[in-house]
This record gives sequence, C-alpha cells and structure tokens, in this order.
Amino acid sequence: MEVMADPAAPLRRNTTPTRVVAVNRSVASERADRLATEEPMEIRAGGPGQEPEAVAVTMRTPGGDFELAAGFLFTEGLIKPGEVEKVSYCQLPTEEQQYNVITVRLTRPFDAAALKRNFYATSSCGICGKAALEDVEVHCAPVAPGPEVSADVISSLPDKLRKQQRVFEQTGGLHAAALFTPEGELLSLREDVGRHNAVDKLVGEALLNGDLPLSERVLQVSGRVSFEIVQKAAVAGVPIIAAVSAPSSLAVEAAERFGMTVVGFVRDGRLNVYSHPARIRT
Amino acid sequence: MEVMADPAAPLRRNTTPTRVVAVNRSVASERADRLATEEPMEIRAGGPGQEPEAVAVTMRTPGGDFELAAGFLFTEGLIKPGEVEKVSYCQLPTEEQQYNVITVRLTRPFDAAALKRNFYATSSCGICGKAALEDVEVHCAPVAPGPEVSADVISSLPDKLRKQQRVFEQTGGLHAAALFTPEGELLSLREDVGRHNAVDKLVGEALLNGDLPLSERVLQVSGRVSFEIVQKAAVAGVPIIAAVSAPSSLAVEAAERFGMTVVGFVRDGRLNVYSHPARIRT
Repeated sequence: MEVMADPAAPLRRNTTPTRVVAVNRSVASERADRLATEEPMEIRAGGPGQEPEAVAVTMRTPGGDFELAAGFLFTEGLIKPGEVEKVSYCQLPTEEQQYNVITVRLTRPFDAAALKRNFYATSSCGICGKAALEDVEVHCAPVAPGPEVSADVISSLPDKLRKQQRVFEQTGGLHAAALFTPEGELLSLREDVGRHNAVDKLVGEALLNGDLPLSERVLQVSGRVSFEIVQKAAVAGVPIIAAVSAPSSLAVEAAERFGMTVVGFVRDGRLNVYSHPARIRT
Repeated sequence: MEVMADPAAPLRRNTTPTRVVAVNRSVASERADRLATEEPMEIRAGGPGQEPEAVAVTMRTPGGDFELAAGFLFTEGLIKPGEVEKVSYCQLPTEEQQYNVITVRLTRPFDAAALKRNFYATSSCGICGKAALEDVEVHCAPVAPGPEVSADVISSLPDKLRKQQRVFEQTGGLHAAALFTPEGELLSLREDVGRHNAVDKLVGEALLNGDLPLSERVLQVSGRVSFEIVQKAAVAGVPIIAAVSAPSSLAVEAAERFGMTVVGFVRDGRLNVYSHPARIRT
C-alpha cells in the first residue's frame, strides 16, 4: 500500500487564527483567538484502471485525511481491509483546494452501485430503527467477546483523553475519539469537528496499519453515542464504547444486537452500562 | 396549508425506557432509565399531481416531524416560504414505521434535479470553504441589520434554554435550539439528537406559521456552532446566533460573509463575539 503526498500537511492548519471581542461582565476587549478548522473534504474511490468516483463530501478538521477517507469507506461497508492500494491528494488548481480531495485507489474494481444499495437510498423495506440495524448487519460480523475491563479503568479514560486533546486545548471546540488497551493505556487519539469523523480517522489508521479488527480495544468518545458511532465501531470490531455523555435509544439497540458494551456518563467515579455489562468488572 | 394526521403522536415517544447497570465507585446496581429516542425519518416532496420523491433520510428524535421536514427543505434551499400545501405522515404497513415517512406536498412542481445541483453533488468549482459559502449564498439573502441585544441578555439565555429542555432533563443527552426576542424572552424551543435538526424544527415551525424571516430573533444553541448551523440560520434570516461552546472556522467565515453575529462560550457572565460585534451592546 502506497500513501502519496504529505499526509501531515493539513495538520498544520487544524486550527485557524481569528480575532474576538471578549466580553466579561459587560466589559469588552479585543484579543486574538484560535478556531477549530472546518473544511469540506471529498472522498473518491476507484479500482485498477477506473476513473475515481466521488463517494462523499464531509465537513472535517484537516489532519488525518487519508485515515478519514479509508476509515469512512470501510465503516460505511464500501471496502474491506486489505483492499486499499494507494491513498493520495488530488492535484487541484488553487492552494485552498489542494488538500481537500482524497483519492483511495483500490486493489479491485470499485462498485459505485453499492452506494445506491445502502439503507439511505432505498426505503423498500420501510424506514425504521429495525431496518437501519438490518442494513448495518449485512457488512458487520458479530463483535468478538473480547476483554473484560475494570470499571476503575473506564473511569480513568475521560481525563486521559482530555489531556491529549491538542486542538481542543487551543480552541475549546472539538470532538475526540481515542483507542485504549483493556489496561487503560492510550494508543491513538483523533480530533474532528464531526464526532463520526474522529471515529473514522481512528478506524482508518488501524485499517491502513493492518490492525483490524479492534477486538482488544476500548473506544472512548468525548461526547454522546449515536447510532452512527455504534455502527462504525461495530464494523471495526470494537467490543467496548465508553462516553462522557448519553447514548441514544438506537445506539443502545444497535449495541445490544451487535454484541457491544456501551458505557455512558463516565464522570466522577460513576458510569452507566447500557448493554452487555459482562465485560465491565466491578 | 393543511397538516395531516396527528403531528403530536411521535412526541409521545421522544424518550425510550431502558435498564442500566449503574456503577458508583465500583458498586453496581440495576435501575430504570430513559434514553433520547433516535429513529430514521424520510422526507419526501412533490408538487401537484407528482408522485412524492424521497429527498433525504435523517436520524432524528421524534416530535416536531412536520416542522423538521418543512424546515429541512427550506434551509437546504429546496423550497421557499409559502410553497407548502400540505404536510402528512405516509401510511406504512407496520406500526414501527408509521411515523417515519413525511410527505411535503408543494403548491408548485418539485424540481428533484435541484437536489443534484447542490454543492455536495458537484465539485466542478473545486472543494473548499469558499465554494461551500458561494453555494449557500445562491439561496440566501444577506441578513438584515436587525436588533441590538445587550451582552447581559445574551448571558441569560443558556440558563433559560436548559430549564426548558424537557427531554434533556429525562435523558441527559440531547441538543437544543431556541428562539428568543431581543429582550431575552423564550419563544420556542426544540430538542433533537442532531444539532442541525433542532434548528430545522425551529425554522420549520416559523415557516409553517408564516413567521419568516426571523430577522428580530436570537437563536441560542446548546452546543457548538458548525457551518451547517450558520447556513440554516442565514437562510432563515436570523441575525444573531449564541452558543454555549465554540464556533468552527467555517462557521465564523460564513457568519462574517452573510452579515450574522456569532457569539460563543456564553458562560458565567462571559462571552466571545466572533463576527459583526456591533449588534452586541456592552
């Protein structure tokens, strides 16, 4: 597998300088500040000899773009591990656009029609949570039993996550997702304006490194757990998701069905286990 | 304009009962809990005599479904105020799906091809923040000067928002958006698992009531401000967005360009003004 151009380049612009009028008890003053960068990114995919096709455009924070592109294609069920031949930036005319189009070249022909077969494009089976779950199940093996993790380890994760959030520290506004060992050691952390992008970057990194499935890992996220987060984690084989906030109803239903443990409200030595509690040791 | 079936019905299921294993300092106990409901919803649109076409599927919290459908079509630039003839639930075979497909019947033919002309489907102009802004500008008049609001009023909004968040109170996990007068009176509040959906519900309510543009209103949101939130507010003519957390770079760039005031980090008597500060009185 080959990775083209300088994948670290966009990292240099993951924050954007700005000026703000800061008001404190009605007293205003101007000062410099930094914002989390949000920029659109287009993901293209193509097989040998094929013209790459646009698959999606996502708003994202630059940095980890190759991981995001590969991770997105994988967690959406469009590619499998080992099918990535090369990831590269497209050459575009202006500097502004230079790092916003990513091409993922595959080892086999890319079936663009697969895009149209997914849940969101067909409602022949009806629109409901059950149909959404069934759609994900098609490209998602049941999660392996995986490790048991102590509640104390889970309780320690949010602080470890926050301490490593470099962009959040500068901007105060960004989602994060991180992979931990069952003993609570942080292995990798990604930040993004989109919570699902942070997860796709982590999963994409594992995919590009040949580290899938993530069956011995705990995924910690900074915010809430939606259906989409559980879907992406399930495809990557993650057995435990821990979050600082609440899961949604469909997130818990999905976790129940795919065999994943979802832990929420991990705060001040407390936590709630919403599904498959056997993996959490107390 | 006609609204069909019982639009309040899905409100009865905006939370979902569940059981959790609650762990407190390593002591586990089981108890009942409630989750914010997340369910897919399909939005269909059609003109007189046309078969309604599926426009989008979004994960949302039931309740305010008609507002969400109308608001989404409007803030995405697909319809204009006054073009909604009727909003209704589709009759679907199973109870689970009963309230998950919404049809918006228009007073004029619906141009499904317009969907394909939007930014996300064409990259002929390149993919970058500037192209995204230009795309929104097409269906978005500049925001009117609107009111001046005191910093003290802005500082009072997050508490007022939180106190009225009924679903958040039960579940601890939901976005909210609310419209306030320039004097800080709460007029309307909507909650959703998706932050953009909460804004679409508010805007959709205004559209169905003939209250657009929202040129004398302050939009307060519970979380961060993304490009998408600014886009939707700009289309609705909102002059001021206030948020408890940070805006993104593209959100501020968009607000700068569309003439909107973005206020962030509204906490403990402090706030930051990121664009058009003249509307905030100190």
